[in-house]
Amino acid sequence: MKSDIEIAQEAIMLNVKDVAAKIGVSEDDLELYGKYKAKFSEHLYDKCKDNEDAKLVLVTAINPTPAGEGKTTISVGLTEALCELGKNAIVALREPSLGPCFGMKGGAAGGGYSQLVPMEDLNLHFTGDFHAITSANNLLAAMLDNHIQHGNALNIDPKRITWKRCMDINDRALRNIVIGMGGKADGVMREDHFIITVASEIMAILCLSEDMKDLKKRLGMIVVAYNSNGKPVTADDLKATGAMSALLKDAIKPNLIQTLSGNPAIIHGGPFANIAHGCNSVRATKMAMKLGDIVITEAGFGADLGAEKFFDIKCRLSGLKPDAVVLVATVKALKYNGGVAKSELGQENLKALAKGIVNLDKHIENIKKYGVPIIVTLNSFVTDTEAEYEFIRKHCEDAQCEFALANVWKDGGKGGIDLAQKVLNTLATKPSDFAPLYELELSVEEKIETIAREIYGAVGVTYSDVAKKSIAELDSLGFKNMPVCMAKTQYSLSDNPNLLGRPRDFTIDIREVYINAGAGFVVAITGKILTMPGLPKVPAAEGIDFDCETDKITGLF
Amino acid sequence: MKSDIEIAQEAIMLNVKDVAAKIGVSEDDLELYGKYKAKFSEHLYDKCKDNEDAKLVLVTAINPTPAGEGKTTISVGLTEALCELGKNAIVALREPSLGPCFGMKGGAAGGGYSQLVPMEDLNLHFTGDFHAITSANNLLAAMLDNHIQHGNALNIDPKRITWKRCMDINDRALRNIVIGMGGKADGVMREDHFIITVASEIMAILCLSEDMKDLKKRLGMIVVAYNSNGKPVTADDLKATGAMSALLKDAIKPNLIQTLSGNPAIIHGGPFANIAHGCNSVRATKMAMKLGDIVITEAGFGADLGAEKFFDIKCRLSGLKPDAVVLVATVKALKYNGGVAKSELGQENLKALAKGIVNLDKHIENIKKYGVPIIVTLNSFVTDTEAEYEFIRKHCEDAQCEFALANVWKDGGKGGIDLAQKVLNTLATKPSDFAPLYELELSVEEKIETIAREIYGAVGVTYSDVAKKSIAELDSLGFKNMPVCMAKTQYSLSDNPNLLGRPRDFTIDIREVYINAGAGFVVAITGKILTMPGLPKVPAAEGIDFDCETDKITGLF
Repeated sequence: MKSDIEIAQEAIMLNVKDVAAKIGVSEDDLELYGKYKAKFSEHLYDKCKDNEDAKLVLVTAINPTPAGEGKTTISVGLTEALCELGKNAIVALREPSLGPCFGMKGGAAGGGYSQLVPMEDLNLHFTGDFHAITSANNLLAAMLDNHIQHGNALNIDPKRITWKRCMDINDRALRNIVIGMGGKADGVMREDHFIITVASEIMAILCLSEDMKDLKKRLGMIVVAYNSNGKPVTADDLKATGAMSALLKDAIKPNLIQTLSGNPAIIHGGPFANIAHGCNSVRATKMAMKLGDIVITEAGFGADLGAEKFFDIKCRLSGLKPDAVVLVATVKALKYNGGVAKSELGQENLKALAKGIVNLDKHIENIKKYGVPIIVTLNSFVTDTEAEYEFIRKHCEDAQCEFALANVWKDGGKGGIDLAQKVLNTLATKPSDFAPLYELELSVEEKIETIAREIYGAVGVTYSDVAKKSIAELDSLGFKNMPVCMAKTQYSLSDNPNLLGRPRDFTIDIREVYINAGAGFVVAITGKILTMPGLPKVPAAEGIDFDCETDKITGLF
Repeated sequence: MKSDIEIAQEAIMLNVKDVAAKIGVSEDDLELYGKYKAKFSEHLYDKCKDNEDAKLVLVTAINPTPAGEGKTTISVGLTEALCELGKNAIVALREPSLGPCFGMKGGAAGGGYSQLVPMEDLNLHFTGDFHAITSANNLLAAMLDNHIQHGNALNIDPKRITWKRCMDINDRALRNIVIGMGGKADGVMREDHFIITVASEIMAILCLSEDMKDLKKRLGMIVVAYNSNGKPVTADDLKATGAMSALLKDAIKPNLIQTLSGNPAIIHGGPFANIAHGCNSVRATKMAMKLGDIVITEAGFGADLGAEKFFDIKCRLSGLKPDAVVLVATVKALKYNGGVAKSELGQENLKALAKGIVNLDKHIENIKKYGVPIIVTLNSFVTDTEAEYEFIRKHCEDAQCEFALANVWKDGGKGGIDLAQKVLNTLATKPSDFAPLYELELSVEEKIETIAREIYGAVGVTYSDVAKKSIAELDSLGFKNMPVCMAKTQYSLSDNPNLLGRPRDFTIDIREVYINAGAGFVVAITGKILTMPGLPKVPAAEGIDFDCETDKITGLF
């Protein structure tokens, strides 16, 4: 069996100019990055802003398991299938982070015969967007510490610095550090923390900004610290906004690459699905909707995190109206949710399937609360059995839910024709009646409790003293009417990663609450959330190489 | 008077494809980065390797002063002038670092009417080469700490880790840090240090590598630490070489942009001129020499550091033979060397000039030791007087040295015609008899002492106990026959920045010696060398902005 990278490298790619031409974009509106990558020019959106909007389809999933679900594989395969059926479909996804590529998870360009290419470039530096974000993030940090070094005119409280440095590498040793050691000229000593670049608020800001003007405004509002009177200190106060926006002038432009079959893929931004909202950029989604007639997009982790934030944060703040949701599951993942060990997932087990399918049920119920029609799809694996498929199909029919089996990993677009037809049928016959789950005017506690009860199925919410204090402080500082961005384990509907299936009778414990004033949301942390991953004992990096004979990268997966 | 960025933004740039066509490179051999930047494809060098080599001209300078000398301005202006005279001249320079752009020094794209464009792109992320180096550097660091975390099978001595993390930002607070704090899962606690990206050994390696094969070999040889038996631990031992080379697969390709007049500029690499060798890449220089008939290149800081390393490290290791040296001075800098305060440099002062010109004399003597013909040039300033010019002109004539006044800052290529003609005349009539200063077979001490006596004019060299021990250890480990890369203040021929002019009767104090096994040189540190700059009280970043109305960056200088 060929590896993903072998399949990707065998692809005969179109020149990106020809991919652009398929959606009516001329070379004049492209900034080429080699032959197979391009950015859209600053003014393309203005040129096509009067085009009719495409239909918008979100691909989300049940709670992730170690078996893997394959949202990106489905997103790409569905796009290929829609294009095979003569539709002008565009897939609009987030960019991969370098960190996981070298760690455990590997790349994020789809899999098998449903991939984005060039996959090596996409998984490594791509067009430099994440490096630009890292630079802007760390310039702000350097200007902050430099301000303190040179007299601290803004009266920043060194114990209340909230801005962290970042790096796009999994490096646990940087989670907790002390900086500014050495002599007087070497900075002021304090505790600090590195986060992974995708967790930077600048990433979230880039993904929620309509244009450069909006980006600048949001950058300026970033709260980097509090002064000794408890008032927020912002990036504008540090006079860092202009230089940061100069660093981000190209990163804000969406990127165009292609699927294995040469269909357009707009790939842009990639905020952590945990402490941020986990969706590709608003700008890229809107651009895709002006250039295609169906846009397939994705949100990170399971639907309890990804879809909730897609609806309540991204769509609400940007005015997007989703038309349908594709909910991805796998037989293995459902059995895992039914209590089967990872090593046993290859065997038929209808009893476990019946037990684990409650996870799927809850996500279906949840999505219905937003008024958006659902198509359930199974990303097929060779070990799945017909009896297992039949059970799930019947279950979905009973729930009055469209269902399609997808063989896109093995067969590319041809394996997604049934799914594509179900999606088209849904778009044609079931109007979306989208509305966010809660009103922005509610208090922070009310918003958190609505999400916890309605989406997670919790019986209540508890707050740490620190969280209570922060909520009161944010209120008194006037940070009101913003959505809440929940940070919760992706492995369970609850905040305990071990509670699989559909947990009941649990409470959600809010440990910490803070403001992302530039992104425009309040972050509520449940449980222990790592914002800087570590490398495993044998990192994927050890298997990656560059072959000088063939000029190709090997071992990237 | 227009600022540099205003002049640069008024330029009507050629499409980079048309710039490439001027030197016979077709679009097929380019990887475009937008309309005005490109990388040369991996195989261009093979295609043109049988072309005759161009003449190679090094631009270097007297010891730098706060008044600024303008090597890059001269390099660009000279190239423009040579092109005006019908020559196929190419300027091959190093890339700027982001750090100084936001700090005090500003960008590094030349000045006035002798600039490289697009200057904003060049000064900011350019084609991502430095970000790729940062990523490779920090991946290696993360794999090192991860190895220790997971059992330390290589028996790395945590007190003898030599590899440092890096960032392309001036951030003094990261000079001395403690990492790995927190719990057991958060890494092993130890002292660490960030350096600026240009100081990474990977930058030096990239600049000295002939091709990807050579790059991989050198990356693998990097000594990251010593084990508890005192034996070196390398990047190969950590199995990091393949992943690092994958990260650097594009960064190794030279970049093409243009001068204000649309002449080709090949810009690639940028090692710190201090602890590294301070020259653009060997690959870019060699590529330029196959594509043009005269190549203008540059080496960092004054000739005592830049030219010495260009000759003894870059040219020696790569087999390059320089044909001429342009030695840049300014009237202001010579007066500063004669003891005039910075605020008084605008006034005519022939006495100070006569006193300070000994600095120029010493550099002329030094370059003659390498057998390369010299042309002295003055980068003119409005406050210079005719009498001052006449004094210097006569002084150079007495030293039997070609001399030309250059008005390239004000007049671009037209202001460099006299200089260009002197260069052409020198190339036509004075054959170069280049040879490095010392033999590689000498001991480390003998090499250091040769440089100190012959180039700096020292009467001797002293060694700290640590340096002595390191030299003995490197010898016993078999690190022999490598050039020495001196790290010394750029402001004086001595290792004391306050000794201007031509200091005599001083000794050079070697504080520390270490190996850069991948780059292939031994580093000898004199005095206090900062490898991570800090920001000034009012960083340049505060003045930089992005204008959303014009889509232009402002305030970058």
